[in-house]
Amino acid sequence: MKAYYKVDEWRVIEEGFDPLHHEASESIFSLGNGHMGQRANFEEKYSGKSLQGTYIAGIYHPDKTRVGWWKNGYPEYFAKVPNAPNWTGIRIIAGKEELDLHTCKTSEFIRELDMQHGCLNRSFVATFSSGKKMRVVARRFLSMAEDDIGAVRYAVTPVNFDGTIEMIPFLDGNVINRDTNYDEQFWDIIESGVKEDTAYLRSRVRKSGFEAGYAMQYTVEVNGKPAKTVVEPLQQPGYNGFHLKIKARANEEVVLYKYAAILSSLDHKPDLLVKNSIERVTKAARKKFDKLYDNHVAIWEKNWAQSDIIIKGDAAAQQGIRFNIFQLNQTYTGKDERLNIGPKGFTGEKYGGSTYWDTEAFLIPFYLSTEPPEVARNLLIYRFKHLQKAIENAEKLGFNAGAALYPMVTMNGEECHNEWEITFEEIHRNGAIAFAIYNYIRYTGDKDYLAEYGLEVLIALARFWRQRVNWSDVKGKYVILGVTGPNEYENNVNNNWYTNKMAAWTLRYTIECLDYVMDEHPLQYQRIVKKTHLYYDSETSSWKDIIKHMYFPMLDERGIFLQQDGYMDKEQRMVAELSPKERPINQHWSWDRILRSVFIKQADVLQGIFCFEDEYTTDTIRRNFDFYEPRTVHESSLSPCIHSILANRIGEVEKAYDLYLRTSRLDLDDYNNEVAEGLHITSMGGTWMSMVIGFGGMRIKEGMLTFTPNLPHKWKLISFNIQFRGRILNVTISENKTSVKLVKGEKLQVEINGKLVNCTHENNLLT
Amino acid sequence: MKAYYKVDEWRVIEEGFDPLHHEASESIFSLGNGHMGQRANFEEKYSGKSLQGTYIAGIYHPDKTRVGWWKNGYPEYFAKVPNAPNWTGIRIIAGKEELDLHTCKTSEFIRELDMQHGCLNRSFVATFSSGKKMRVVARRFLSMAEDDIGAVRYAVTPVNFDGTIEMIPFLDGNVINRDTNYDEQFWDIIESGVKEDTAYLRSRVRKSGFEAGYAMQYTVEVNGKPAKTVVEPLQQPGYNGFHLKIKARANEEVVLYKYAAILSSLDHKPDLLVKNSIERVTKAARKKFDKLYDNHVAIWEKNWAQSDIIIKGDAAAQQGIRFNIFQLNQTYTGKDERLNIGPKGFTGEKYGGSTYWDTEAFLIPFYLSTEPPEVARNLLIYRFKHLQKAIENAEKLGFNAGAALYPMVTMNGEECHNEWEITFEEIHRNGAIAFAIYNYIRYTGDKDYLAEYGLEVLIALARFWRQRVNWSDVKGKYVILGVTGPNEYENNVNNNWYTNKMAAWTLRYTIECLDYVMDEHPLQYQRIVKKTHLYYDSETSSWKDIIKHMYFPMLDERGIFLQQDGYMDKEQRMVAELSPKERPINQHWSWDRILRSVFIKQADVLQGIFCFEDEYTTDTIRRNFDFYEPRTVHESSLSPCIHSILANRIGEVEKAYDLYLRTSRLDLDDYNNEVAEGLHITSMGGTWMSMVIGFGGMRIKEGMLTFTPNLPHKWKLISFNIQFRGRILNVTISENKTSVKLVKGEKLQVEINGKLVNCTHENNLLT
Repeated sequence: MKAYYKVDEWRVIEEGFDPLHHEASESIFSLGNGHMGQRANFEEKYSGKSLQGTYIAGIYHPDKTRVGWWKNGYPEYFAKVPNAPNWTGIRIIAGKEELDLHTCKTSEFIRELDMQHGCLNRSFVATFSSGKKMRVVARRFLSMAEDDIGAVRYAVTPVNFDGTIEMIPFLDGNVINRDTNYDEQFWDIIESGVKEDTAYLRSRVRKSGFEAGYAMQYTVEVNGKPAKTVVEPLQQPGYNGFHLKIKARANEEVVLYKYAAILSSLDHKPDLLVKNSIERVTKAARKKFDKLYDNHVAIWEKNWAQSDIIIKGDAAAQQGIRFNIFQLNQTYTGKDERLNIGPKGFTGEKYGGSTYWDTEAFLIPFYLSTEPPEVARNLLIYRFKHLQKAIENAEKLGFNAGAALYPMVTMNGEECHNEWEITFEEIHRNGAIAFAIYNYIRYTGDKDYLAEYGLEVLIALARFWRQRVNWSDVKGKYVILGVTGPNEYENNVNNNWYTNKMAAWTLRYTIECLDYVMDEHPLQYQRIVKKTHLYYDSETSSWKDIIKHMYFPMLDERGIFLQQDGYMDKEQRMVAELSPKERPINQHWSWDRILRSVFIKQADVLQGIFCFEDEYTTDTIRRNFDFYEPRTVHESSLSPCIHSILANRIGEVEKAYDLYLRTSRLDLDDYNNEVAEGLHITSMGGTWMSMVIGFGGMRIKEGMLTFTPNLPHKWKLISFNIQFRGRILNVTISENKTSVKLVKGEKLQVEINGKLVNCTHENNLLT
Repeated sequence: MKAYYKVDEWRVIEEGFDPLHHEASESIFSLGNGHMGQRANFEEKYSGKSLQGTYIAGIYHPDKTRVGWWKNGYPEYFAKVPNAPNWTGIRIIAGKEELDLHTCKTSEFIRELDMQHGCLNRSFVATFSSGKKMRVVARRFLSMAEDDIGAVRYAVTPVNFDGTIEMIPFLDGNVINRDTNYDEQFWDIIESGVKEDTAYLRSRVRKSGFEAGYAMQYTVEVNGKPAKTVVEPLQQPGYNGFHLKIKARANEEVVLYKYAAILSSLDHKPDLLVKNSIERVTKAARKKFDKLYDNHVAIWEKNWAQSDIIIKGDAAAQQGIRFNIFQLNQTYTGKDERLNIGPKGFTGEKYGGSTYWDTEAFLIPFYLSTEPPEVARNLLIYRFKHLQKAIENAEKLGFNAGAALYPMVTMNGEECHNEWEITFEEIHRNGAIAFAIYNYIRYTGDKDYLAEYGLEVLIALARFWRQRVNWSDVKGKYVILGVTGPNEYENNVNNNWYTNKMAAWTLRYTIECLDYVMDEHPLQYQRIVKKTHLYYDSETSSWKDIIKHMYFPMLDERGIFLQQDGYMDKEQRMVAELSPKERPINQHWSWDRILRSVFIKQADVLQGIFCFEDEYTTDTIRRNFDFYEPRTVHESSLSPCIHSILANRIGEVEKAYDLYLRTSRLDLDDYNNEVAEGLHITSMGGTWMSMVIGFGGMRIKEGMLTFTPNLPHKWKLISFNIQFRGRILNVTISENKTSVKLVKGEKLQVEINGKLVNCTHENNLLT
């Protein structure tokens, strides 16, 4: 499936229609605007295989847990973002024949994702079995300027016939999910109908009560002039629109503009949903398509100015990074702290659209550097708001006294996942949440965040680790038993180095933050002590004892941190010894064989070294990289980015480049043969990191940006903008030169390859 | 719920009807005869809570696997013994009122399991809301003499009214399972109807095609004389019988005799099922109830003569052991090598009625000692017949070259279970299957079994262990990674001592057996070598290398075998420190907390010591017992029996007694509050072992029976019969005397407390 799409620096292009690729293309060509998302389902009827997908941010269905064997502590449901009512549909009929690319012959088919302007274009000529030919040119966008508005321009030209073209733009509430545990219908239709020139729909998610309100209007032009149309309202339960008949002669272009407003009860009172959506769509339709589009493009221009990365000399790499950045910007805009980023964003049903540790570990850095600090802050506040639920989650598992265990998978703060080895044991996620606070403050300098929100979270996390360790008499150390680390190809292990590291670090950082808030925000400190019932002396002294005596498994004589106890008892095979027929092992090996093997799904010790890089010499990093990289199969999308960054860190630039291609073109080239299910949205943050932190060599040290760039030999130049403490900086790295230019804001000092540089509005060109 | 039933040496008695106990009593009062089983559901209508249960041996439904997260290697289905059509039902109507103990007032209620005669008696007086009183006396049995026949004597006496009694004996094929993964109906009705005086029914298990054929006849008497009855056939789809109207005066006893034949397609051609069942029931009805009953009782008399254990001085203990023996004899008779023993036997749906390692580890000894050798041999042949499936099961997990992994749970040799930590990792079951062969030969002396069946199984098991170990460079030993031992409160551990022990022992025993067959059965040996493609030299030499270099985790300085790597890293708490509120921990703790804890669900290292007791000094056994017993919560029914035996082994008789009571009265006193789901049939073999091997101190050494008995101070005497190599021996142990009397067969020598004794038909009384 590799190299199916044409390489272009700003566009993803599919030439020719292949039904076998259609579901994958529906994922690849998805659009979103933070508030909602839409897979690239065809507007017209399509009777072939298709995964219908319309998603509204923050709306979920609590799907009753399905499990073979219940374990104490399992959640009752898994929250899923349901496939929402369809607003894009336009049936097209010519005579007695309906346009359907599954039955018509298709030629000149081009589907194009215009990443620069955030729109989906499609054109083709369809030949009906009668021999009639019809040319279609369609454009669709989800407005970034008005995020409850979607618009379609759908142009039909009869090529070789005169006659009546019937167009049926509609809203359809009769939708189903492919992914349901018990084949349940998720949505109930509350109201639907047609009022004058507007169709409307109000639907409710059965179990959660979330509601969506839709309204739709249209206009029709023939050859650029308002068309004479015969209109009949279409009124079926939950399926409403207009049946239009337009007379057209050969080569006359009939254009339907379809406008839809998609509102949700997160922002509107349920009983106002219909009224408000009608108002919104009326206003949008009055602006007309081109104006809406221009406003939308203006936001994308701003987005690209903030977050584009230019790569010269390697169009595939250029397309790859832009595709990643485009998807991230589509998925989360940071306006609403109730929202987060699901692993598939708005591109598929899988993983339920819920929040994982991916956000903290792989996405925060992207939003920190490409958006004002409020965006990353909102992602942190999302977790702050779930703190009480995380405390309750820990209580359910037997912890107490304000200890918090954040869920592995969540929508509203409650745990959704139900595999004991993940749900109960993959507790390193707590570390990622602490680290994100640290990372945010390190980047933004916003230490006040601690007093307002961060410290309470850290105290609860520290308390969790305090209860989760136990003293081992035989080791004379604190140990952490029964965990699953980031490498999910090991389950229920003892002393996962990464987890132990995260635990000890969290305890240390929490004490540091406590002392800071005590000194600098005494009133807030008092409030927090009271609220959390903190006993500073006894609690911090037990934390210090753990920090001092935490056990870390080591392969001593080689200076390598051991992934977990007993790792060296495994048969020490290398990934290179595996037959290609066995790859990916998760599709060819039984689960127990995977577990017993030495092979690592994703960065684990290396993930920890990445987080705490400053603590280790290059030599130590290299030794660990050289030990783990040959054992890592990278069967998680979150793996190659971290390895790529560390490869750069130890100067292995070409290795870093190979790993980068794997991460940046994971979906475009469908490495894992699963793009039909949706895109790997969260790993796209990792791709961005592998560029800016990896090749760009960007770090923050004592509040200062530093760069130690590397370019693979294929690249002539990379260039990207960074937001940092009120400034926008442009970083441009060519073979022998790195410049950091101040685009906006006050001057500041940065470090490039160890040398201090003053950034002003002049270019700083340095060797 | 303890002490709900009256203690009696031969009976279990429920006095007074308590609907809250009804489902538990339905389990306790279950009947079976090896071919089929029946929960103690009331014959008359009962609208209260009840678990309907009729089970036919060997018939199962492959219920589609339900799992939250699929793992490579999981099976497609879980085989379940379905609740089969109901043959016991008799509706009773007086005027406009129907007898239903949920709505009538009940007095003088007695339900009694007569273990001596294998029947269920019930009597009560019901008062209808009209004030009418009716006395009912019912008896039911499932014939041990003709195992496809069940019979009911149902006597109704109007106490304070004259009038018409309506009786509706029926067959009902419209049954459901409570335990289904997707709420499916398991049975389809193929034929049903009434022919003259016989109602019949033929049903098919939808997915497996197994069929059951039922036929039913009846007679009615009033005060001992054939009654005048008005009869109408009852013909509804799958629900057929007779509507009888009998005039009766107050205090006249109306007795309905109901006879049913229950046949299955395991023994009959499907299209002959109706014909044959009509023939069978006709023949049975002709014999009449009393004759059928006498024939049935005669078998029970023989059973008790073979397997009874008498305990003097402790009625509760006496009732307990008889209840266990009774259930075992009801569940499996050894006639059919296609059958096995499910954990709940014929008493409930749970665990699907499938075969577990329980059979080899806990039941073989009972059947060896209480039945002719063919019975245990049939249980071994059951596994021999599944060998090819076990090889395929291993292949599915990545093994090859004839290695076999027997399923954790099975009906036809295919794996049914779907928890990776059990299905793929609880591989010690392979050890139990090898040990059962050894145990059978040790007891019976039937070494020819090896040449005919056993060796092929052993070779496949040895090959599995060969592939399942790996060499650890750091340990310089072979290790077994990623297993779950008998103690299922640990999952995915490394080097479970018991598993490693079983593996090494199996390799050693297989070589020994290979050499034996090579020498003694050269033709069979050649056949087996050819069939298994055995390379004697290379295979046995690699097995020997593993035997020599197998790693066994030890707590060295204390001479204790360590359950698995890392066990001592756990917080070393004792069960005595647990609050009663936390017990059982599996109902109060989250799963991860259980896994992390030191607490042991069931004998693990001690299970291994029990198997290989001769290898260890009493001192070693004591040290291990003293280490593990305080850490063991015995939350498996299979645990206390082994601990009881070892407590006896080290002379802690009163401790052994406490553990014995727990095992023998587990269900009668409902220790785990789950009897409503069914009885713990397989652990009953453990209870028997704790008597004969535990208190009786019986062992086999070099083909000789040895006894080192212990009596708890409460007991005056225990006495049991043992079948051994063509003899029946009676063993009687009183405070200071042990006698072993030859009941049948040729004289032999036994050892009692280290002294050789000649057993003849005279009593041997010794101190």
